[in-house]
Amino acid sequence: MKKKNFNEINIGDKSIFSKTITEADIFAFTGISGDFNPLHVSEQYAQTSLFKGRIAHGMLVAGLIDYTLTDIAGWGGIHISQSVRFQAPVKIGDTITVESVIIAVDLEKYRFHVQSTLTNQEGTVVLTGEGELMLPK
Amino acid sequence: MKKKNFNEINIGDKSIFSKTITEADIFAFTGISGDFNPLHVSEQYAQTSLFKGRIAHGMLVAGLIDYTLTDIAGWGGIHISQSVRFQAPVKIGDTITVESVIIAVDLEKYRFHVQSTLTNQEGTVVLTGEGELMLPK
Amino acid sequence: MKKKNFNEINIGDKSIFSKTITEADIFAFTGISGDFNPLHVSEQYAQTSLFKGRIAHGMLVAGLIDYTLTDIAGWGGIHISQSVRFQAPVKIGDTITVESVIIAVDLEKYRFHVQSTLTNQEGTVVLTGEGELMLPK
Amino acid sequence: MKKKNFNEINIGDKSIFSKTITEADIFAFTGISGDFNPLHVSEQYAQTSLFKGRIAHGMLVAGLIDYTLTDIAGWGGIHISQSVRFQAPVKIGDTITVESVIIAVDLEKYRFHVQSTLTNQEGTVVLTGEGELMLPK
Repeated sequence: MKKKNFNEINIGDKSIFSKTITEADIFAFTGISGDFNPLHVSEQYAQTSLFKGRIAHGMLVAGLIDYTLTDIAGWGGIHISQSVRFQAPVKIGDTITVESVIIAVDLEKYRFHVQSTLTNQEGTVVLTGEGELMLPK
Repeated sequence: MKKKNFNEINIGDKSIFSKTITEADIFAFTGISGDFNPLHVSEQYAQTSLFKGRIAHGMLVAGLIDYTLTDIAGWGGIHISQSVRFQAPVKIGDTITVESVIIAVDLEKYRFHVQSTLTNQEGTVVLTGEGELMLPK
Repeated sequence: MKKKNFNEINIGDKSIFSKTITEADIFAFTGISGDFNPLHVSEQYAQTSLFKGRIAHGMLVAGLIDYTLTDIAGWGGIHISQSVRFQAPVKIGDTITVESVIIAVDLEKYRFHVQSTLTNQEGTVVLTGEGELMLPK
Repeated sequence: MKKKNFNEINIGDKSIFSKTITEADIFAFTGISGDFNPLHVSEQYAQTSLFKGRIAHGMLVAGLIDYTLTDIAGWGGIHISQSVRFQAPVKIGDTITVESVIIAVDLEKYRFHVQSTLTNQEGTVVLTGEGELMLPK
């Protein structure tokens, strides 16, 4: 990780991040968010759901994008907006790989867009998203 | 918290959640996300930034919406998509209040849209967002 | 979650909460309480005990009652006292369901009593308790 | 900490434990218990309450008794029951000292009773409790 200048930001720049989702991640995110939906915290209830077991909070999985954004933008990058679409459930033990790439750069406003695709260990896309960042002079 | 039927989902339904952001929240979210941007984890660096101190990850703040979504949708609700716009920084010690309201209901697809507005203790809007949820029969 | 008035407190009001106990819960409670009894933190020792594996701290399991008390009493509720009886061990991976019900209301002192029964996924009662709460005007 | 035999358990045996309550303790206990009462997690709301600031969950404070019970009973001790009375609020930054003492021993059932008194840095009693433990042969 390092500080970057805006002229180091180029369409096509990529970053990859990979992590296995554990019970501890879900415990911690539940503690942050207050979302104790039994789909996330009760194995017994989740077994009766269409997912057949506990799944991670969607916004937890979305949070994995952050690493790649900081990697791409460097220390000074500011997150302006983010949209995500939850495509498939993420279960405890799934390994999620985030691939993010710069798809547009606005030279006048010092802003750029990053598209992210998150897949699990079987190659299934679990989340797609697009973020806008700013890198002030 | 309880299970809800789709006919209990109505435009105008609201939920409120309020929480002070602590160092422990930032520590935990950093551990989940891998985003160790010094803006979030180094007070020394953050003091030199335009924010004059550590700020919370935007996606951490976005995660606070989850409580209200589960409150509105009940146990069976499924998060389809979420967009967020980061409007102002959130510092350690800020108390964030989330107010979420159902703004549209699709009776055929069992889906509905929730608009969320997050403000700090001074009434400044720090984040706005819109989510889509599904509540299967 | 919301603020309640005392006249909304009625005998028979119930709240249910369900959660799977994870290693992360035990890790966190150990850090809070300082109780590093190897029955809770050493799988090797716990295997030699009559429980044949690590079990959760009783007071951790008792803490699960809190969700239902806040759900029943609303924001302003104050916990006056609590008694608990540990009926059966709780192992990592057990899903505990708390069912709490108001069994007595004192209209003059703005106080009420809540009986809680905690069962595991097999229906075994693991803990019973009774709490007293106050909801000031 | 060590394994003890029941003949090492005597009326008058004491244990003391002291700890400062931090935001991190409250964050962790909230994550365990699901109790996001704004009295515990929102400084803004808590300022408007009669406590003039966030207070710790009563059951978190009760959990501090655990250290002394394990110290007194040794590794093999089993917690049978516990009653607690919340006498005064515990704020972030308060240093709580637990003093526990054996007040009764039942030689036939291998059980004994422990009385605990918790005080803050100003000497105010914040919690009193009585627990029953068993130490099998």
